Amino acid sequence: MTSRFSFELKATDGKARTGVISTPRGEIRTPAFMPVGTAATVKAMMPESVRATGADILLGNTYHLMLRPTAERIDRLGGLHKFMNWERPILTDSGGFQVMSLAGLRKLTEKGVTFQSHIDGSKHELTPERSMEIQKLLGSDIVMCFDECPALPADRDRIVESMRMSMRWAQRSKDAFGDRPGHALFGIQQGGLEQDFREESAKALRDIEFDGYAIGGLAVGEGQEAMFKVLDFAPDQLPVNKPRYLMGVGKPDDIVGAVKRGVDMMDCVLPSRSGRTGQVFTKRGVVNIKNARHADDPRPLDESVDSPARNYSRAYLHHVFRSNEMIAGMLLTWHNLRYFQDIMNEMRHAIAAGTFDAWEEEFHAMRALGDIEPI
Amino acid sequence: MTSRFSFELKATDGKARTGVISTPRGEIRTPAFMPVGTAATVKAMMPESVRATGADILLGNTYHLMLRPTAERIDRLGGLHKFMNWERPILTDSGGFQVMSLAGLRKLTEKGVTFQSHIDGSKHELTPERSMEIQKLLGSDIVMCFDECPALPADRDRIVESMRMSMRWAQRSKDAFGDRPGHALFGIQQGGLEQDFREESAKALRDIEFDGYAIGGLAVGEGQEAMFKVLDFAPDQLPVNKPRYLMGVGKPDDIVGAVKRGVDMMDCVLPSRSGRTGQVFTKRGVVNIKNARHADDPRPLDESVDSPARNYSRAYLHHVFRSNEMIAGMLLTWHNLRYFQDIMNEMRHAIAAGTFDAWEEEFHAMRALGDIEPI
Ligand SMILES: [Zn+2]
Ligand SMILES: [Zn+2]
Repeated sequence: MTSRFSFELKATDGKARTGVISTPRGEIRTPAFMPVGTAATVKAMMPESVRATGADILLGNTYHLMLRPTAERIDRLGGLHKFMNWERPILTDSGGFQVMSLAGLRKLTEKGVTFQSHIDGSKHELTPERSMEIQKLLGSDIVMCFDECPALPADRDRIVESMRMSMRWAQRSKDAFGDRPGHALFGIQQGGLEQDFREESAKALRDIEFDGYAIGGLAVGEGQEAMFKVLDFAPDQLPVNKPRYLMGVGKPDDIVGAVKRGVDMMDCVLPSRSGRTGQVFTKRGVVNIKNARHADDPRPLDESVDSPARNYSRAYLHHVFRSNEMIAGMLLTWHNLRYFQDIMNEMRHAIAAGTFDAWEEEFHAMRALGDIEPI
Repeated sequence: MTSRFSFELKATDGKARTGVISTPRGEIRTPAFMPVGTAATVKAMMPESVRATGADILLGNTYHLMLRPTAERIDRLGGLHKFMNWERPILTDSGGFQVMSLAGLRKLTEKGVTFQSHIDGSKHELTPERSMEIQKLLGSDIVMCFDECPALPADRDRIVESMRMSMRWAQRSKDAFGDRPGHALFGIQQGGLEQDFREESAKALRDIEFDGYAIGGLAVGEGQEAMFKVLDFAPDQLPVNKPRYLMGVGKPDDIVGAVKRGVDMMDCVLPSRSGRTGQVFTKRGVVNIKNARHADDPRPLDESVDSPARNYSRAYLHHVFRSNEMIAGMLLTWHNLRYFQDIMNEMRHAIAAGTFDAWEEEFHAMRALGDIEPI
């Protein structure tokens, strides 16, 4: 096992890439999907079950963890890996995005942001320096720069102003991060949907030099078409020999379209959140287990997805979901996470074999079929 | 594997007994604790995890299942075992007790009871005949007679009247059950706290002849002292060569006291319900994980209990419980179920070795120590 963080590109097929990120805590096969473990748990899952779905790395949320149980407490307890019983790599976000979406009474200045906890109303401050400190206390393997991004749509003035501040924050993040062998710091490209701003942002980040580069400010309501337009140029603006991480994406077809355009890493709450609300992802599209058509259906959700949910009928899953039983969320989340990891695994193989286009065609054709006929 | 239901008493120590119930779906080591799977799931657990705790048999609730998803639907789907993915023995209660505690607008006659569903207000009827039919549709391995019991305290007139009707219902249950090789029907002794009524009830049941005998109408608020007084004579009133099942018990010390008095089987929601409310059973008594004293405690709940909860600090369990994360209920339930099964396993060995008294002394001495000192 390596003592340093590194990325090896193994194969490309069109713009799609497959490779391996090596870290002291294990390898991350790319393209990689990172399940989200917001409050030191991937909701409804045991960590060993998350691993069993094929996940190489989890994402933790700095905003939630700094408020409860606090980064200092996690540090005293030996770090986030030990705390949550996940010994493999963890990426933490910077907290910036969730302050903007969850916290109360935010005040944004060049220095950083002050806000009130959505849990107990207590006051807190996040700056690039404090975000680096928190992510270090957590023991994160991949640390994200502290940044800011406006909600879309926004006018060009607001976008460029915000992006340039984020680039100044990127430099402050790098300075505060310092030299931590075995740990990586990723810069985050901003610039909204504007190609020129995205290039300016990418250049600023390339000049600072990071271990990886995220594409931020997407998947915030702009829609798939607009997102793909940006992904048609944004990954190419980033260094070819470093991992590229698209934050907060996404639905299965978003993920496939992003990989096709040169993205290496993604994260999203969708598979776990949907699992708890009865939305299930299958090879033939989305199934809503709440629907009465499943009440008497003896068939599994999708027999090709190897999770414990395969041992139950749709009728059972419908029953336990309607009865608010925890096993519904447990089984459906496991299924969804496994389905997402299956897509990643299949894409990695298809890229290595040079058959990504054929794989993608089959992926869309299966989804176009829609769910199996009711019995 | 046997094709018939049978009970073999292997050893006794004082009044305590250990043995094996053989069924076509596997053996049940006694004394046995049965986790409760009310709505076709032991809450917060996967069935394979329930098995991993050491459970040989589950209890299912006729009342809940007849209302949702209905016994007829479970039958169409291949029976309760297949439905809930638990291939080992299942005991179902008769529905009578839960109609009395949960349903609305109950009307009790010699024929049976009519009531309204607590879920949707729909009207239903349960009689001895209908209860037998439902438990057959579910595919239950151990079927319970349909009975009725008054809330305690009640006057002797009310108790004897109710007990005698339950004995008439026991005969009707037996007649309706018929001959079902491999499946067992248990009679239920009633009679409140009154030794003469308990004897009259036991005699009625012995005359009808059952595959096992339950002690009903206890653990309904009378307190441990009153319950143990009844258990000082009630098990002796039942046949020695058949399993004796104490319904709805209980706390760890209730269980130990019942086994000491000759009980072979028990069930209770306590380990799973407590797991979801943060009450944890350990060798050194009850721990409330909500308590602030655990927030920084790096130690496991009880390292002697072999469950996944052992891989986490009390600080983590405190954190996820306070954060309303599902993993709290999952880990604490698993721990509690494992602790209960550990007690059963230790008692079985102690009885076989003739060391039950010494084991019981140690059990109480450990609990008297109280939880480990705060750090
Ligand atoms: Zn997302
Ligand atoms: Zn109980």
